[in-house]
Amino acid sequence: ERAAADVEAAAEDYLRLFHAENPGAGDPRERLREVRQEIARTGTYTHTPSELVFGARVAWRNSGRCIGRLYWRSLRVRDRRYVTTAEGIAVECVNHLRDAAPARRIRPTITVFPQERPGVPGPRIWNEQLIRYAGYRTADGSVVGDPRYVAFTEMLRGLGWPGGPGSPFDVLPLAISVGEGPPLLSTLPGDAVLEVALSHPVHSWFEELGLRWHAVPVISNMCLEIGGVCYRAAPFNGWYMGTEIGARNLADTDRYDLTPLIARRLGLNTGTDRSLWRDYAMVELNAAVLHSFERAGVTMTDHHTESRHFLMHLEREEKAGRVCPADWSWIVPPMSASATPVFHRYYEDRRMTPNFVHHPDSLERGLGRSCGPGS
Amino acid sequence: ERAAADVEAAAEDYLRLFHAENPGAGDPRERLREVRQEIARTGTYTHTPSELVFGARVAWRNSGRCIGRLYWRSLRVRDRRYVTTAEGIAVECVNHLRDAAPARRIRPTITVFPQERPGVPGPRIWNEQLIRYAGYRTADGSVVGDPRYVAFTEMLRGLGWPGGPGSPFDVLPLAISVGEGPPLLSTLPGDAVLEVALSHPVHSWFEELGLRWHAVPVISNMCLEIGGVCYRAAPFNGWYMGTEIGARNLADTDRYDLTPLIARRLGLNTGTDRSLWRDYAMVELNAAVLHSFERAGVTMTDHHTESRHFLMHLEREEKAGRVCPADWSWIVPPMSASATPVFHRYYEDRRMTPNFVHHPDSLERGLGRSCGPGS
Ligand code: HEM
Ligand code: HEM
Repeated sequence: ERAAADVEAAAEDYLRLFHAENPGAGDPRERLREVRQEIARTGTYTHTPSELVFGARVAWRNSGRCIGRLYWRSLRVRDRRYVTTAEGIAVECVNHLRDAAPARRIRPTITVFPQERPGVPGPRIWNEQLIRYAGYRTADGSVVGDPRYVAFTEMLRGLGWPGGPGSPFDVLPLAISVGEGPPLLSTLPGDAVLEVALSHPVHSWFEELGLRWHAVPVISNMCLEIGGVCYRAAPFNGWYMGTEIGARNLADTDRYDLTPLIARRLGLNTGTDRSLWRDYAMVELNAAVLHSFERAGVTMTDHHTESRHFLMHLEREEKAGRVCPADWSWIVPPMSASATPVFHRYYEDRRMTPNFVHHPDSLERGLGRSCGPGS
Repeated sequence: ERAAADVEAAAEDYLRLFHAENPGAGDPRERLREVRQEIARTGTYTHTPSELVFGARVAWRNSGRCIGRLYWRSLRVRDRRYVTTAEGIAVECVNHLRDAAPARRIRPTITVFPQERPGVPGPRIWNEQLIRYAGYRTADGSVVGDPRYVAFTEMLRGLGWPGGPGSPFDVLPLAISVGEGPPLLSTLPGDAVLEVALSHPVHSWFEELGLRWHAVPVISNMCLEIGGVCYRAAPFNGWYMGTEIGARNLADTDRYDLTPLIARRLGLNTGTDRSLWRDYAMVELNAAVLHSFERAGVTMTDHHTESRHFLMHLEREEKAGRVCPADWSWIVPPMSASATPVFHRYYEDRRMTPNFVHHPDSLERGLGRSCGPGS
């Protein structure tokens, strides 16, 4: 927990930023006085609804790893700071999923649950994302489902989850804790989990592979940090960029590792690196992802479009007189990198607040490596 | 120019390293005494042949941008510190090219020309690489050849080069200067320029595009820095990794920009980013490059093999108790990045000496933006 003096300094910085960028928001000195008093009394303070909305948007604007920031002003903020029970949070996570993708048109959305207060750590969502697939280790050592979540799946089973039907795409239940003690496990209702079955624009055998992915990526274990206040439960989503699914989730050797299978179905020589079978298979897999989302009418962007948009964003930020922090290794797409304009330049990178932060205990819990409530 | 005290400190560091890694090299204290005396007298000092060889190899080992360092101990060092005229240097550059690729088997090689001395800046090779292609701006504003070298080509013409036949692959002459005054221009004899005509393993129309690339990449405008001594003319080569040609030189939009042409020949829809035409075209172009070099019997590596080799190198360096500096954004290949193991980790990066260094005036000269002898 932070010392009150640190909270006060961070609060002052944020409120100055808030009032500078929102000139109609009233007298900053009065608000500062109020906030200082609340910090003196309680060790923290409470954001006004506008401070929360602006703070969440700027946290996105400051996310140096995110290529999708052109749309930062459009972030929809669901203020659910009054929801204090694990059951209530589970319900609001489901509502988030329904609300973020009406009629398959995805809207960037964040739901903010109660903040951390001295002695009251606030709720935690243990899952890395609201929707992710279980990983089951089988008797022969192989994995059915997502290998990334084998330990998390086992941890949930230890906590009482009976497990799913055993398909490669069993949606995990949410694990939500409020204070000490084991988390609430809560199964997502089917209608809240929009998924897209994958087919290929040309190769009809692709559909027979039975692949699918969920439509909405909702990161749920990062901390939204605004002006010295930690919102440890604040799930947020944008829409997918195709490569996240086609070049990473379904392709990484420690995830679904599908390039060897696809290369074999394409008839490529997987016996030598020089045949570029991985490269061919990856492009086909990504073509299938983009094609399938388009066919299903679900919002998705491709890495070429999004790279151009990101450079537009940079230009706008520069015009606004702001530094736009960016981490090259995350901004540059994981395939065909030099074919995108973001590859051919460097960026400034600095930690700026508000922001989204990984706390080590959340990282561990999200991968099933710890099952304590953490710090 | 460096102060004698800086040179002495850098010399001491290097000689300590040299003697630590070469225990049979005699008494370091005696050598240090000698070197200090020479610095006091001349402002610099002269490496022994073994110090030069080891220094060049360690400069490679310390090149944080180079994925090919597994072979650092095998670097062949051609000591040509006694060649002092521009004509002599031109001849030795040609000899380097012949010597580096006997029977198309490429051998990592460096040729070291005279060092910088107080008041005597030493020779300069103006070209970025010993073999590169001219770029000619045509009346309609388009470019024939390599757009990167349009200004360099114009500069050479201003210095008296009549220009080549006007093909997209006219080899540029060398520009070599010793001291003040205009450089010597020296045409490379055809037999020193090994080139590979590009064809595709499947698409026969590819050959009709008339594409080619040179076989040996010899960087010629970086400074080899060893223990406070600058070798400004020290061209070095490895063999190509296919992506350098297929994903960069022939594909970058500000280089040969061939992906639109290839995508059209493949029948892809270039009207939308989502068809992934750039990605498909890039893979086919790279397949052609690897295929053509293989067919021609010329040494070349692919990015998958080289990524594995680089991780072996890291492991070896770690076992030897050394830090291996590496720059993620250069090490990770420019296509199919996440399909290579080097993508999935971070690296330490620090400037270490000996090393290869870009001096600003060399960068400018190599792109035809300046035609002074520089600092
Ligand atoms: C609107 C569409 C969006 C797109 C296309 C997009 C795209 C991306 C991509 C491709 C990444 C890299 C992911 C990876 O490699 O694992 C990323 C990371 C990130 N994005 Fe976005 N994003 C969008 C919306 C958002 C929103 C709404 C927020 C927050 C309000 C956000 C915050 C972040 C953060 C914090 C990361 C880093 C995650 C981490 O550290 O693991 N993004 N984004
Ligand atoms: C043996 C085969 C070699 C391979 C496959 C290899 C591969 C590479 C690659 C792919 C790059 C990045 C190039 C780019 O993106 O522009 C690179 C950069 C570099 N390599 Fe190597 N390399 C090899 C040999 C060497 C040798 C022999 C040296 C020096 C003795 C060397 C020193 C460097 C340096 C200094 C850079 C950075 C160049 C710059 O800053 O522009 N490499 N190498």
